[in-house]
Amino acid sequence: MIPNDAVLLEHGSGGLLTHELIATVFLRHLRNFCLERLEDGAVLEVQGMRLCLTTDSYVVSPIFFPGGDIGSLAVYGTVNDLAVCGGRPLALSCSVIIEEGFSLKTLDAVCASMAVAASRAQVQIVTGDTKVVPKGKGDGIYITTTGIGLVTYHAPLAISQIQPGDALILSNTIGDHGAAILCSRENIELASPLTSDSAPLSAMIERLLAASPRIHCMRDITRGGLGGILAEIALQRGLTLYIDERAIPVQEQVRGVCETFGFDPLFLANEGNMVLICDAGDADKIVQIMREYPCGRHATVIGTVSGQTDARVIMKTCIGGERIVELPTGELVPRIC
Amino acid sequence: MIPNDAVLLEHGSGGLLTHELIATVFLRHLRNFCLERLEDGAVLEVQGMRLCLTTDSYVVSPIFFPGGDIGSLAVYGTVNDLAVCGGRPLALSCSVIIEEGFSLKTLDAVCASMAVAASRAQVQIVTGDTKVVPKGKGDGIYITTTGIGLVTYHAPLAISQIQPGDALILSNTIGDHGAAILCSRENIELASPLTSDSAPLSAMIERLLAASPRIHCMRDITRGGLGGILAEIALQRGLTLYIDERAIPVQEQVRGVCETFGFDPLFLANEGNMVLICDAGDADKIVQIMREYPCGRHATVIGTVSGQTDARVIMKTCIGGERIVELPTGELVPRIC
Repeated sequence: MIPNDAVLLEHGSGGLLTHELIATVFLRHLRNFCLERLEDGAVLEVQGMRLCLTTDSYVVSPIFFPGGDIGSLAVYGTVNDLAVCGGRPLALSCSVIIEEGFSLKTLDAVCASMAVAASRAQVQIVTGDTKVVPKGKGDGIYITTTGIGLVTYHAPLAISQIQPGDALILSNTIGDHGAAILCSRENIELASPLTSDSAPLSAMIERLLAASPRIHCMRDITRGGLGGILAEIALQRGLTLYIDERAIPVQEQVRGVCETFGFDPLFLANEGNMVLICDAGDADKIVQIMREYPCGRHATVIGTVSGQTDARVIMKTCIGGERIVELPTGELVPRIC
Repeated sequence: MIPNDAVLLEHGSGGLLTHELIATVFLRHLRNFCLERLEDGAVLEVQGMRLCLTTDSYVVSPIFFPGGDIGSLAVYGTVNDLAVCGGRPLALSCSVIIEEGFSLKTLDAVCASMAVAASRAQVQIVTGDTKVVPKGKGDGIYITTTGIGLVTYHAPLAISQIQPGDALILSNTIGDHGAAILCSRENIELASPLTSDSAPLSAMIERLLAASPRIHCMRDITRGGLGGILAEIALQRGLTLYIDERAIPVQEQVRGVCETFGFDPLFLANEGNMVLICDAGDADKIVQIMREYPCGRHATVIGTVSGQTDARVIMKTCIGGERIVELPTGELVPRIC
């Protein structure tokens, strides 16, 4: 039994309760100019340079899943958070909390995977820490990666920069990571196998920033899915976003998994997919560049930012109706990242 | 039963097994110029600036202890790691892993403590992450803090900079944190209460760096205690350190706790105490400055670096004998930080 005045799994879902927890506990005590912006990372001015700092703990279960593992996920996740803040990754730190009894061979495999991922994302892990907790006080391994990046884009990249008329661009199919984790957890074998989209977005983003001076905001899609990210953006910016369900690419297998388990692909996590919001005039160019990269091969404009100030996400559905997309509630898929 | 090929609690002790794990797993896969230096943080050159990055996970049990709690410990620990690298703290990140069912009131108290600690250490927590794991897969709360700092000291601060003839200075009494945690865990009440020394060293270190151009290396004393840190330094630098047991300040209560539990204060943790190694000519000046600060009130020269290359720590004991101080083995006090 979980008491009333307690943290619930849902507090970690990336949905409504996560936002409430951050606002009522963390922000209330620690509020400052950077933290209250609630972006994926903080941008700091240091002697005329803009540095970006981002951190995430990874508690994914299972540790190994089709298309990735906790080690590569931790590296790519942090690199992606830097990249969407406009930061070219300078270095990562890595801190592990290992449960007593965890296999040294598995630890070795996780480390090897981190090394490959770091090399692929062209970044080094320069410092770290190792803690061991007693058996039953952890779950194999938890990894916290923190990244610093150098921001050179001419303009701020932030939710506050989003303007009415901007285009909403999605880089890839939604829900691949969440559905792959679900299948792996439930031992489901699909006729055509489904893998996580876990991948670094940094090379693609570097190209995009060089190509367009009118990008206003980027977000990688993780916990809470596309729907969660868009609802968050609408709320924070105070504008209404219109999206078209028919434009949103979803793999057939992901649709199938969602039907089986009663999930909505809109709220399933990705780990190598992003939303980019830019001046509509640059949208075509950006989509074309994205499509040159595997992580952007399904890139497309999925909607637009309106001037309405009721801060909602309105989705035109496949059958022609309208649906309001809200911050997700309920447990969704726990421990997805 | 923990299988042979498994991670043991001792791997997290900061002693011999921790060093072996880092060398055979983490360094083997992730080796690079920064990581292999095995300092408390990494110093990076970025556009002519030297930035310092450090990370630590905190899994201390109990969460609240005399003189501190996991929140303030996480802030001071990371600030101290930056400070001993010569870094003036620029910003911290904070990532929490909370066990389902953890009291929201306790979370609030931990957060409030972090806020007070950050304000005392004159640093802001600018970004963070929150994960929740199911009941039985954690232990209340684990906190990972990462810090970036700006290094302006003229010379590198590193074990490699230590020279024969250098003085070894200790800033305070040893073992206070470890003994306070032990008493708290075992519900021992001492006639005169013992509190952890958990505190930020940054203000004192800033003064020291401004006062002496001949500081070669600093280390804050945490897991593994003074003995562990010195053994590590001797091994890495390849020189023999001579210390005098009579010069090392130990509080009476700490001595008592050590006798009760069979611990050696040399290997008990501190969380607001440091070793500084400098040119012997500056030692008196440094000791005098340290004594102006509460965290340096027992500052004293405890030994010297010799030119011998057998890489050991030799302690002249109180009764006039000699003892070799080696990297600690065994579980020491687990989950001390």
